[in-house]
Amino acid sequence: DESERPPPVVRYRMNNVTTTSDPIGNRETILILTPLARFYQGYWDNLLQLSYPHELISLGFIIPKNWEGNTATSQLQERIKKTQSGPQKKRFASITILRQDTEIPLQSQSEAERHKMQNQKARRAAMSKARNSLLFTTIGPTTSWVLWLDSDVVESPPTLIQDLASHNKPVIVPNCYQRYYNNDKKAMDVRPYDYNSWVDSTIAQSLAEKMGDDDILLEGYPEMATYRSLMAYMFEENGDPTKEVQLDGVGGTALLVKADVHRDGAMFPAFAFYHLIETEGFAKMASRLGWTSFGLPNYLVSHHLIGKICSIQN
Amino acid sequence: DESERPPPVVRYRMNNVTTTSDPIGNRETILILTPLARFYQGYWDNLLQLSYPHELISLGFIIPKNWEGNTATSQLQERIKKTQSGPQKKRFASITILRQDTEIPLQSQSEAERHKMQNQKARRAAMSKARNSLLFTTIGPTTSWVLWLDSDVVESPPTLIQDLASHNKPVIVPNCYQRYYNNDKKAMDVRPYDYNSWVDSTIAQSLAEKMGDDDILLEGYPEMATYRSLMAYMFEENGDPTKEVQLDGVGGTALLVKADVHRDGAMFPAFAFYHLIETEGFAKMASRLGWTSFGLPNYLVSHHLIGKICSIQN
Ligand SMILES: Nc1nc2c(ncn2[C@@H]2O[C@H](COP(=O)(O)OP(=O)(O)O)[C@@H](O)[C@H]2O)c(=O)[nH]1
Ligand SMILES: Nc1nc2c(ncn2[C@@H]2O[C@H](COP(=O)(O)OP(=O)(O)O)[C@@H](O)[C@H]2O)c(=O)[nH]1
Ligand SMILES: [Mn+2]
Ligand SMILES: [Mn+2]
Repeated sequence: DESERPPPVVRYRMNNVTTTSDPIGNRETILILTPLARFYQGYWDNLLQLSYPHELISLGFIIPKNWEGNTATSQLQERIKKTQSGPQKKRFASITILRQDTEIPLQSQSEAERHKMQNQKARRAAMSKARNSLLFTTIGPTTSWVLWLDSDVVESPPTLIQDLASHNKPVIVPNCYQRYYNNDKKAMDVRPYDYNSWVDSTIAQSLAEKMGDDDILLEGYPEMATYRSLMAYMFEENGDPTKEVQLDGVGGTALLVKADVHRDGAMFPAFAFYHLIETEGFAKMASRLGWTSFGLPNYLVSHHLIGKICSIQN
Repeated sequence: DESERPPPVVRYRMNNVTTTSDPIGNRETILILTPLARFYQGYWDNLLQLSYPHELISLGFIIPKNWEGNTATSQLQERIKKTQSGPQKKRFASITILRQDTEIPLQSQSEAERHKMQNQKARRAAMSKARNSLLFTTIGPTTSWVLWLDSDVVESPPTLIQDLASHNKPVIVPNCYQRYYNNDKKAMDVRPYDYNSWVDSTIAQSLAEKMGDDDILLEGYPEMATYRSLMAYMFEENGDPTKEVQLDGVGGTALLVKADVHRDGAMFPAFAFYHLIETEGFAKMASRLGWTSFGLPNYLVSHHLIGKICSIQN
């Protein structure tokens, strides 16, 4: 009788949970976390082609509770059903879908609108809370790694997880690019997309010093030139994909974190934290907890091309 | 065949998880979290006598991996075994025990040694990380409340959870006292124990302003008089136990938190956060996320009496 069985007691020795440069060899579990406003088939296809053993991968999604979110949830659930009843090798260990209880401002707006400077703080504060809710409720005692992966990352090497983990860094971020049609070259081309991975500058720091307590520095806006070194611009054609750069801010489009960094308390500040917010604030918080962030300027993942002209930052 | 079954997909609508002043009526689940260095029978007895439905209570412990921790783990597991195979009504919903992977400085030392000012920062930073590990790995999507309860809290009203929850506050803390033998009165008496629940003062704030980035303010040390209003001193004999005071810092001996406050990202900073750390830093972080903390100066819980003379602060 179920009701008579003593409820479960689970014991974990946290030093048995390793996080190494050989995660497959050590059977390390990874949690892939995706805040998801819109479903992209390209995202799902890319996820399925990851060669990291799927039985070691758990997935977590947080989806807004509005109409668009309902659509995205149905689309996602349809794909999940198919995958989880398909070939054993492709199935994931477990999947959690959270429907958000709060509305995120501006999420239904266009990319240009979303990226407007005055809209960024409220939006990124809300995104921080969504990421934290997802993180706090899905990370478990046996999680070794957390891979943050935006729902519009549609292309990455199949070995993404192994490649990033092989660096054995607390926090590591690839360079997020966008494919587009270059009208001058009359050919497809790539351009930088994520401006949140950077090395700090003295100019940015002195800008920060003059700011009010609640003000945040934002990257990619000409009216607030920070002179930070952006990883987006460190890409070299045919450059070594294993080249590392130590970073002070990171973006979240694709971001691998040792679970212990989060377990120590590193989350996504929804408030100005050293005048930083969300993923950039996360890097600062990790650093206050003694963990260093790194970027791979020549290791690319691709962001979906939305509409025709995409980034106001170009 | 187990291996053929599609792995579970779990969907949660977070707005279905309520956190109200009538938690029993609404069948709200609570997670009781205890960092535990030493096992006290009084703690376990007190836990068992809580009248909140045990089937709505999950327990989480984090225990150091040293010799003392091994002993505490055995003692705890023995009690758990008895309780979880005893009367259905007394059994808890689930229990998680984490064995820490890092050593906490000074935890095996005497109370006097632990409370020395220069030892506090390292100790409380390590305690913060232990609390965060426990929190991040046990809080789930269906958790409504988190009750932080130190392992040396040996006495509380059976209605502790209902009483605290009835205030319907994001963060609420009772007043933690210690029973002792008063030699002057030749009788048992009570004295304040927890100095971490306070209302801020302008003096403390100007002390903080002059401090280095990494320095922290500590309460209860004559050499650093903060002139904060300590809840410990607001206790009135026969005072109204429902009286509320808004607080800027909180202690963690017993502390009820709406799970959404944590899910938004409020954790225990292991670094100087506005010159605060651990539970006091938590209150500040909650406030930066828009959540206010309250204390109940006339609602008492009791801290174990260790040794003969206990608090260097008296
Ligand atoms: N849960 C949730 N996710 C969102 C919301 N808005 C955006 N996202 C997701 O968060 C990630 C980053 O958002 P996106 O709009 O692509 O940001 P940008 O590329 O930096 O402009 C993507 O995976 C989005 O699908 C929201 O309101 N709620
Ligand atoms: N996991 C863990 N818990 C600890 C450690 N040291 C103390 N604790 C627990 O943390 C709580 C607060 O510690 P305690 O020594 O009572 O602090 P104090 O009463 O403020 O001096 C109690 O529940 C302790 O059992 C440690 O090293 N690891
Ligand atoms: Mn995007
Ligand atoms: Mn104690």
